[in-house]
Amino acid sequence: MTLKERLYDTIFGTDSRAGQTFDLLLIAAILCSVAVLLLNTVEPLHRQYGSLFFGIEWFFTVVFTLEFLTRLYCSPNRRAYLFSFYGIVDLLSILPTYLALMFPGAQQLLVIRLLRVLRIFRILKLLRYLADANLLFRTLAAARRKIVIFGFSVITVIVIFGSLMYVIEGPQSGFTSLPKSIYWAIVTITTVGYGDITPQTSLGQFVAALAMFTSYAIIAIPTGIFSAELIQESQRQRRPIQCSNCERGSHEQDSSYCRFCGAELPKPLE
Amino acid sequence: MTLKERLYDTIFGTDSRAGQTFDLLLIAAILCSVAVLLLNTVEPLHRQYGSLFFGIEWFFTVVFTLEFLTRLYCSPNRRAYLFSFYGIVDLLSILPTYLALMFPGAQQLLVIRLLRVLRIFRILKLLRYLADANLLFRTLAAARRKIVIFGFSVITVIVIFGSLMYVIEGPQSGFTSLPKSIYWAIVTITTVGYGDITPQTSLGQFVAALAMFTSYAIIAIPTGIFSAELIQESQRQRRPIQCSNCERGSHEQDSSYCRFCGAELPKPLE
Amino acid sequence: MTLKERLYDTIFGTDSRAGQTFDLLLIAAILCSVAVLLLNTVEPLHRQYGSLFFGIEWFFTVVFTLEFLTRLYCSPNRRAYLFSFYGIVDLLSILPTYLALMFPGAQQLLVIRLLRVLRIFRILKLLRYLADANLLFRTLAAARRKIVIFGFSVITVIVIFGSLMYVIEGPQSGFTSLPKSIYWAIVTITTVGYGDITPQTSLGQFVAALAMFTSYAIIAIPTGIFSAELIQESQRQRRPIQCSNCERGSHEQDSSYCRFCGAELPKPLE
Amino acid sequence: MTLKERLYDTIFGTDSRAGQTFDLLLIAAILCSVAVLLLNTVEPLHRQYGSLFFGIEWFFTVVFTLEFLTRLYCSPNRRAYLFSFYGIVDLLSILPTYLALMFPGAQQLLVIRLLRVLRIFRILKLLRYLADANLLFRTLAAARRKIVIFGFSVITVIVIFGSLMYVIEGPQSGFTSLPKSIYWAIVTITTVGYGDITPQTSLGQFVAALAMFTSYAIIAIPTGIFSAELIQESQRQRRPIQCSNCERGSHEQDSSYCRFCGAELPKPLE
Repeated sequence: MTLKERLYDTIFGTDSRAGQTFDLLLIAAILCSVAVLLLNTVEPLHRQYGSLFFGIEWFFTVVFTLEFLTRLYCSPNRRAYLFSFYGIVDLLSILPTYLALMFPGAQQLLVIRLLRVLRIFRILKLLRYLADANLLFRTLAAARRKIVIFGFSVITVIVIFGSLMYVIEGPQSGFTSLPKSIYWAIVTITTVGYGDITPQTSLGQFVAALAMFTSYAIIAIPTGIFSAELIQESQRQRRPIQCSNCERGSHEQDSSYCRFCGAELPKPLE
Repeated sequence: MTLKERLYDTIFGTDSRAGQTFDLLLIAAILCSVAVLLLNTVEPLHRQYGSLFFGIEWFFTVVFTLEFLTRLYCSPNRRAYLFSFYGIVDLLSILPTYLALMFPGAQQLLVIRLLRVLRIFRILKLLRYLADANLLFRTLAAARRKIVIFGFSVITVIVIFGSLMYVIEGPQSGFTSLPKSIYWAIVTITTVGYGDITPQTSLGQFVAALAMFTSYAIIAIPTGIFSAELIQESQRQRRPIQCSNCERGSHEQDSSYCRFCGAELPKPLE
Repeated sequence: MTLKERLYDTIFGTDSRAGQTFDLLLIAAILCSVAVLLLNTVEPLHRQYGSLFFGIEWFFTVVFTLEFLTRLYCSPNRRAYLFSFYGIVDLLSILPTYLALMFPGAQQLLVIRLLRVLRIFRILKLLRYLADANLLFRTLAAARRKIVIFGFSVITVIVIFGSLMYVIEGPQSGFTSLPKSIYWAIVTITTVGYGDITPQTSLGQFVAALAMFTSYAIIAIPTGIFSAELIQESQRQRRPIQCSNCERGSHEQDSSYCRFCGAELPKPLE
Repeated sequence: MTLKERLYDTIFGTDSRAGQTFDLLLIAAILCSVAVLLLNTVEPLHRQYGSLFFGIEWFFTVVFTLEFLTRLYCSPNRRAYLFSFYGIVDLLSILPTYLALMFPGAQQLLVIRLLRVLRIFRILKLLRYLADANLLFRTLAAARRKIVIFGFSVITVIVIFGSLMYVIEGPQSGFTSLPKSIYWAIVTITTVGYGDITPQTSLGQFVAALAMFTSYAIIAIPTGIFSAELIQESQRQRRPIQCSNCERGSHEQDSSYCRFCGAELPKPLE
């Protein structure tokens, strides 16, 4: 095993002990650098600890640059890594610090580094949570069509209530334009309810009340879709037996004969 | 196939290639005209691009007029189309622009054109999403009675909490009338919570807290109803067939042989 | 059938045609009188139509008084009616108008008349919605214990977050007392979020964020409880067959032998 | 049975009549002392009844001190009790009153006494609610992994929307720092929606609308997870037994005979 292969196993892999330790250390480093990034935007902290934060930022930039170069070095397919989602995020999260040397203010772009927290999902692999994550993903994929239909319906309801309120309330209550009215409808129907724009007339309050009742019916639907789909998906997981005659596979565990060709089925192994 | 029939297939149909292309183009045109409509109500944009928006509006009005006339021409039953929901919306969405020539201000009515976004549901037909849409509709229809009972209960709870707060808080906290108190109860129990009217006295805040706890119980009920109904409706879709040899019944719709005794199954009647 | 019996059938019954017509008329009258009550509390309407509303109020008071006296007359057990929930509401909803003759201001108590809308639940009987209403009630009754446990947990979480915020934020952010902090915790954890009291310090906002995450977990629990219970309750409805040997009843539809004593079961009638 | 054993049974046990009475009295005392604690922080009440509240506080402190000492006396393993969660809470809830004799202001710490309300969960044991509480706990434990995955996803979504809004809106709309923007994202995505920080620019309102739609999808997921898990957990409670004659397996736990062939079933192992 060459050094390159060993590096690849450590940096990209999750099976070996070294790979797991590396992933944990990397995530710790990402969380630290993100924490510094967050605190640096708080005005009083920036004034007091600005230069300390600046030092830590450079430290992590150098560390992440080394990590990026090692990844490039040991990757069997450099192009694929460079243009993958993580490759682009890795690169973009170190560039702003260097750019700021030439163009002051480029440091603002450092906010992109927040995207590195997505690496946290690698922990799932470490913790053997993959089966559950896959189940949730497959459920969302199976409910795909129902979610699209639901999305269309919600958008239609929102557009109708938004334009109704624009006509009823008008600019003096804050409904200054149709897009703003639709923004109000979204805030109301998702039950967020900021209260920055509220109906003032009696008719407006009546229509708003109707919109809120609709939001009730609406919130029940995605939850119901997801619950039903998740239950079915969990039941589908108990793998069915395959017929050795016609090779079709969707037989329940307690079947004795193939329901397509009538041949006897093999006993489930359990 | 006459020109009229071919036009009908293109404009009303969704099976032919031409029909699908027409539907996609129409929906794109509707979304464009709606976007212009929305942007035109934003004061600064209206001042700067008002005449451009005016031009686009006339362009889409002419396009939709031609579409409307062609629909009328090729429809086998003109009366039925004219008085159908979509026929009325199609007509009302072009009238305001013409009316504005005689009565300035009639353009305000153009807001009706937003209803044309409902045509977006035709995309469902194109994308073969109909089976899922039907399942959701049948579920809502099956849960019809439970939803009505739930609606009655919610209205009762809202009326009681609204009138309680009117008596407790009174006009100085914004509860100026019974309808306004009921509006407050709706805003609170649907968890929208604008904060434009809030209880000020200790007793009022205590009763409001009770109302919020109620809203908890309440929000669980429609979700539970819809979930349970959807799970049952999905299972009903595959009603089992019975074996005529061993008379056992739990066979799936696509089975040809009994999975217990191997005898041939009767065909499902559909 | 005496007049008294016929009156009883009409007023208290829901099976005869006369009884159904009476119920519908009564509910219409209640809704009308409630609408007048609501509108009369709106200041501008009260000033303009005050005397008209006063007349309508007296009209309905006389009608409801006659109804109350007839109910008393034809009821086979007057005491039971008089001290039943509906009997008390019926009496209390007519008293305030008479009291106002002697004590001006007693009319404020007319708000009690709103409770008469509860009679709307009698419509359920008319519309044969009773089976569904019973199912929902039995589900809530079956989930009783889980709801109590959930309630205890929520109250504990609310008390802890409320007192935490009282210590952290203090009076200058509106958390002037422990009860007020607990009121804030209720408003936040039920996701109502008025915004009348909000955390101002960084630590307070961090703890508030934790409280909101908790509210997520919390809102999933009653919904899940109700869904699961409703599904089980619906399945229990498909009545099982009874063994004619040992007279025990909980056999599934596809059973051939009693699972308690082994005797052959009767075929289900369907 | 010695006095010590009898004391232990009364104070720690829940099976004997004396133990149940003691628990109920203790919970009543805790609720009373908590109520006084709450009311004492309300400024006007404190000014008027301050000395009365002071007296009650000392009364309950003495009572709880006696309870604590008795628990210590009769506990078979004093160390274990002293360092258990309840032991620490019991001690901490009496200390502040004594400390206030030396250090005025230590009374503020009395807020810890609110944690004693956790003892209310002992009522569950009294009311035989344990089976249901265990079911809910096991469901949460079974859904553990899915909840962690969901938590990661929500945090990622919140970080991304928070930093997006920080870049778009900037300090003039209240998004003064990244942590504050993330606080806004939490308030919005959990649908609490205080309205203390709201987007002001059009682009900001558009992104906020996207965040709210996401919150819809998001709220459906924990509910779905919990519902599905609870349904499965309830069904698992009655695991079916298999017939040793016909080898079919779908028999309920309380069956004695196979419902297909009538043969005697093996006893469930528990």
